[in-house]
Amino acid sequence: MSWREAAEKTATALRSDAAERDRAGRPPVAEVGLLRFSGLLGVLDADGWAAANTAARIVSAADANVGHLLGYHYLQRWRTGLFGPRADTEPGWFWAGVSNPLDAALRLTPADSGFVVDGAKTFATGAAVADRLVVSATRTDTGEKLTFVVDARAPGITHADDWDNIGQRLTASGGVRFTAVRVTDVLGVQPERETDPRVPRLSLAALGFQLMLAQVYVGLALGALREAAGYTRDRARPWFQSGVGTAADDPYTLTGYGELVAFADAAGHAVDAAVTALGQADERGPSLTHAERAEAAIAVSSAKIVASRAAVETTSKVFEFTGARSTAGRYAFDRFWRNARTLTLHDPVVYKAREVGAHFLRGTPPELTGYS
Amino acid sequence: MSWREAAEKTATALRSDAAERDRAGRPPVAEVGLLRFSGLLGVLDADGWAAANTAARIVSAADANVGHLLGYHYLQRWRTGLFGPRADTEPGWFWAGVSNPLDAALRLTPADSGFVVDGAKTFATGAAVADRLVVSATRTDTGEKLTFVVDARAPGITHADDWDNIGQRLTASGGVRFTAVRVTDVLGVQPERETDPRVPRLSLAALGFQLMLAQVYVGLALGALREAAGYTRDRARPWFQSGVGTAADDPYTLTGYGELVAFADAAGHAVDAAVTALGQADERGPSLTHAERAEAAIAVSSAKIVASRAAVETTSKVFEFTGARSTAGRYAFDRFWRNARTLTLHDPVVYKAREVGAHFLRGTPPELTGYS
Amino acid sequence: MSWREAAEKTATALRSDAAERDRAGRPPVAEVGLLRFSGLLGVLDADGWAAANTAARIVSAADANVGHLLGYHYLQRWRTGLFGPRADTEPGWFWAGVSNPLDAALRLTPADSGFVVDGAKTFATGAAVADRLVVSATRTDTGEKLTFVVDARAPGITHADDWDNIGQRLTASGGVRFTAVRVTDVLGVQPERETDPRVPRLSLAALGFQLMLAQVYVGLALGALREAAGYTRDRARPWFQSGVGTAADDPYTLTGYGELVAFADAAGHAVDAAVTALGQADERGPSLTHAERAEAAIAVSSAKIVASRAAVETTSKVFEFTGARSTAGRYAFDRFWRNARTLTLHDPVVYKAREVGAHFLRGTPPELTGYS
Amino acid sequence: MSWREAAEKTATALRSDAAERDRAGRPPVAEVGLLRFSGLLGVLDADGWAAANTAARIVSAADANVGHLLGYHYLQRWRTGLFGPRADTEPGWFWAGVSNPLDAALRLTPADSGFVVDGAKTFATGAAVADRLVVSATRTDTGEKLTFVVDARAPGITHADDWDNIGQRLTASGGVRFTAVRVTDVLGVQPERETDPRVPRLSLAALGFQLMLAQVYVGLALGALREAAGYTRDRARPWFQSGVGTAADDPYTLTGYGELVAFADAAGHAVDAAVTALGQADERGPSLTHAERAEAAIAVSSAKIVASRAAVETTSKVFEFTGARSTAGRYAFDRFWRNARTLTLHDPVVYKAREVGAHFLRGTPPELTGYS
Repeated sequence: MSWREAAEKTATALRSDAAERDRAGRPPVAEVGLLRFSGLLGVLDADGWAAANTAARIVSAADANVGHLLGYHYLQRWRTGLFGPRADTEPGWFWAGVSNPLDAALRLTPADSGFVVDGAKTFATGAAVADRLVVSATRTDTGEKLTFVVDARAPGITHADDWDNIGQRLTASGGVRFTAVRVTDVLGVQPERETDPRVPRLSLAALGFQLMLAQVYVGLALGALREAAGYTRDRARPWFQSGVGTAADDPYTLTGYGELVAFADAAGHAVDAAVTALGQADERGPSLTHAERAEAAIAVSSAKIVASRAAVETTSKVFEFTGARSTAGRYAFDRFWRNARTLTLHDPVVYKAREVGAHFLRGTPPELTGYS
Repeated sequence: MSWREAAEKTATALRSDAAERDRAGRPPVAEVGLLRFSGLLGVLDADGWAAANTAARIVSAADANVGHLLGYHYLQRWRTGLFGPRADTEPGWFWAGVSNPLDAALRLTPADSGFVVDGAKTFATGAAVADRLVVSATRTDTGEKLTFVVDARAPGITHADDWDNIGQRLTASGGVRFTAVRVTDVLGVQPERETDPRVPRLSLAALGFQLMLAQVYVGLALGALREAAGYTRDRARPWFQSGVGTAADDPYTLTGYGELVAFADAAGHAVDAAVTALGQADERGPSLTHAERAEAAIAVSSAKIVASRAAVETTSKVFEFTGARSTAGRYAFDRFWRNARTLTLHDPVVYKAREVGAHFLRGTPPELTGYS
Repeated sequence: MSWREAAEKTATALRSDAAERDRAGRPPVAEVGLLRFSGLLGVLDADGWAAANTAARIVSAADANVGHLLGYHYLQRWRTGLFGPRADTEPGWFWAGVSNPLDAALRLTPADSGFVVDGAKTFATGAAVADRLVVSATRTDTGEKLTFVVDARAPGITHADDWDNIGQRLTASGGVRFTAVRVTDVLGVQPERETDPRVPRLSLAALGFQLMLAQVYVGLALGALREAAGYTRDRARPWFQSGVGTAADDPYTLTGYGELVAFADAAGHAVDAAVTALGQADERGPSLTHAERAEAAIAVSSAKIVASRAAVETTSKVFEFTGARSTAGRYAFDRFWRNARTLTLHDPVVYKAREVGAHFLRGTPPELTGYS
Repeated sequence: MSWREAAEKTATALRSDAAERDRAGRPPVAEVGLLRFSGLLGVLDADGWAAANTAARIVSAADANVGHLLGYHYLQRWRTGLFGPRADTEPGWFWAGVSNPLDAALRLTPADSGFVVDGAKTFATGAAVADRLVVSATRTDTGEKLTFVVDARAPGITHADDWDNIGQRLTASGGVRFTAVRVTDVLGVQPERETDPRVPRLSLAALGFQLMLAQVYVGLALGALREAAGYTRDRARPWFQSGVGTAADDPYTLTGYGELVAFADAAGHAVDAAVTALGQADERGPSLTHAERAEAAIAVSSAKIVASRAAVETTSKVFEFTGARSTAGRYAFDRFWRNARTLTLHDPVVYKAREVGAHFLRGTPPELTGYS
């Protein structure tokens, strides 16, 4: 079975009970189990960057929670390769990370032949159900910022289980706390000065997260369209003034879908172009320049702007093609908008627009931050 | 206490626990109790049409469920006056109706000195918690369509309790069934031919429902703005790239609110104009002409188009001014969008646009239907 | 003939050759002559504030150049009344002003029993074809800012005749230069400190200009809709895939008009509300407070935001209902968009949104400037 | 010099006086001369489909008139290859066509060893300045529809010179009349039944025109952004309330550009995908199936929807980043919107949306028409 078949098969499985699982709102233990079983966790390593991105989009369209988890898994795997050879993994291992840039840094203290890490972070998507975590922390002795891998079930790791949000409910995006957790597997040290030649490459990680968010946005738009179309075809009634025999023949429904599909597809093409741009930046290896990195960053931000709007607008608008009865709770069609609205707030998209505008108007490269 | 003070006070009470009540999703027994206690149920009779509309908007901004119930209560009272003197009521009586035009008609059979009514209707907002119901049904013997009042707790009335939708969860909008319910209080007979001179006046009822929906939409937009503004001021953090010290100083947040407020206010002004237009049509009494009725209908439809868009867009967009953490479930800020999205699907707004367009372009008056 | 009839009659006359006059692009000598003849120049003095506003809207819908000139004429008349009794006028006198706040101030030098004024200003709409000008300038000796009236044909006044813009081509909005022009008719002195109790009232003038711009925007939207509708009815061909026999039956054209009409009407209602608000502020006279002034300012800005968008979007969108052949130069349908696009740039609407947002979010009153 | 360098160089030349040439509005004799000189007319034959498309976009961004002529030239060359080997050409020959599907058919009468063609067509872009014309006409004897090539300067061809429209003024899109023009170079016969296996391939021509229109739309959006950005940087003044020192630092201008750039780029990516899809359909040769043809058609229509909106919105919105003074006639910045508005009405985009919607919702392939 190809990765694409595996992704489609997984999507089909997820689609069948996505509404019920959204309502139940349990931690995604079963869902991550499905990913382990599907073989999809190995796609980045086996089939590469573009395949991993497409797999994440396909799964996101069926269940944006699981697509988000899968996409971030790929990202964590991928970013370990920015420091050197990609970190070792096992078949079926699910990777997550702990890295909210807005929280205070975790503290690393030298101990024995390694370190111990202490502190807490919020919004650690997938960490509670992961096998391995990629974590960054600051050495209390030298002030250096290190990135390392830890066993997600290591003693001293506890989860706040405080993710009870309106959307992306199954992403286990709660907080995590480290209490004297032993660290041995250090991937590398973050350069301290921006003039360090390793900066362009190592700072690609932030772009990867942004891109993967955009990937899920596109999935959300496509998923909402697909689910709504099924309802329009199978259940919706034609409006009595429409003069047509089935809801799927309503002239406004047809153009309504057409416009949303066209925009969702355009967003998808923009994200595809960003996948290519970031893939090429990665392939440049350590010789990647700031200017090349900026081009990739702008491609990602530009795609994210469009994908964000496509997700929010599409997931709200489709109800106009399914009608009043489609608001019945059992369909949970609102989950698409709730997921889109929640995830598109990850970081404010208007600052992405500012970034793209400043680059276009004045040639200014994006600032190097945890989000750009 | 003036009606306006009563409305504001009721709104304050509703606002304090709106999120929790939305989550609990119980039938609005307590809420209707609050309305009974507030004195607001008598505003139409005591203070008139414009006051009732404004009261409904004020309450809708605090809790669109309760605003919807209150607005429909006023509408049911008001429409009884289209047949002759307004139906008698008691202080504290809550009125609702049973009239989904898309369901099969209820059946009226002559019995004793009156009738018995049989059959079922869906979407009977507020019926399960009402004191009196305004109902329409068709005589099985003559085919005439009668409108009448029944005691909402009369033997033979049962409620499906099947309203479990994504929005307007507390409106008790489930189905109702009549089994040999006795009818004595007939308000009037619906004219059979469109040339009947009573048609323009009697068909105002449909416009009243449309207008009251628009009233709730405006309330939803204003309510979401108010609630979001409180969060922006009190809880939101400024984005680290914004260069300002508080979220309420972010330049994009300021213009974002400004644009939404301007559009919500414009929608409010359009609805005010429709209130005036429908009020004037009502005051024309039995001499109202088809042309005059059409003007009022277009004012209502036009306002509803704008109010519908304001509600859906505002309730989704405000999240961009409150940020990622505002998606925490405990705030339930998604309720504004869920309510708006659900209620704006009542009947397809695109057919309202067609109606306004046909009137503008060709002078065509709106068709006389249960929705126009 | 009532003012409304006069406005409608003038509109009809203007409509008949608006396209040709736009192409010719001559100074509006004949147009101002028509205004003199129509009796409309006296509407503010004879029929009051609301009538003057409606007259300006009616004329703007037919020809936004002339509506702009008429609206500003009313404004100049009106603002003279902020200092004391309204300045004297004669039947048929056309008033304009010279006051671009972004230019350097004109210089007033005491001379004989009055002053002489020197300097230049850009964008002096209507000045070249006016009878009287309202002008502000700064005393070179005391630094006080005075507002005064001069005969528009006084010696020393010359016109740059440099208005050759893409829209509002007939508004004579070029620059004007004063060379030792005698000034005797001083209306008043602008207060120097914001704590001066006269400030709220005297600063209403800026709001009047903003409101009148919004009035023209609404006129532009309504005018474009009317002109396009005539074409759709009389000339447009149905699209061969539409399945209908005339362009006016196309389902998308009907909803297209309906939506634009609804939004233009809502903008009109918002502007009406601002007319009322500013009228009430004026009626408060010298006791107007800063807080009351701020409420009126926000009503104006809010209306302007909506009217601005309605004008730009409507004038561009209507082409989709008239089709490819309606782009023939002889119809000059692009003049509506060119006029709207030009006039909506008068001052950046995004800063109006910031103003409304800051007031909504933080209660901040608008800054007192030449634009707010 | 590569084709890309030639395109960029031609674009630079066109950009330098595009505003003046738009105002002069002369037939594009000099412009076609520039294309002949540039070597760009041979790009399709020498460098292939994708290169030709990109060249058309680059030139369109500088001058959409010339981009339109160049794109259609490529299309005419390309469509001759659908019947068999591509028609012969000479270096520097400019090709155009005569084929408005909405006009009555031209008439072909057998004569000598060929035919003569008679009749008239409107909207024959570029025909008046071309070297060779691709024409379709119907045999008066058999009813067959033939496509053929004629020398554009052959006796009997006259031009109405009646193209005086608000946009695309330099495209020579007036009517053409044929009076007994000799025809010898027949490319092929249009199949009569839709079941003819040649139909999918031969009907690709209509898609090519649609795609090339979308290409010009993207060029228009990008061109307006580039021109506006130059003005913002070099001439615009910061708004006095912005708190920044240059217009290019205004926070709203930055995000404004960013959003438009992101959407224009997404439209560009969608059009690129359609170029690929149509190129692949072409490469399938005579074995192209209806289903494959439908996929390409939907890719083209989908891209056209997005590109159309990007063009119309961008060309109107950019004025908000250049300000009031940028409406001076000498800049002629309105030409971008006038061109976009004119060209996006070629055929109604809402019917493209219906086509995409019907395909998405019900799997319906697009009808085979002159536009799809």
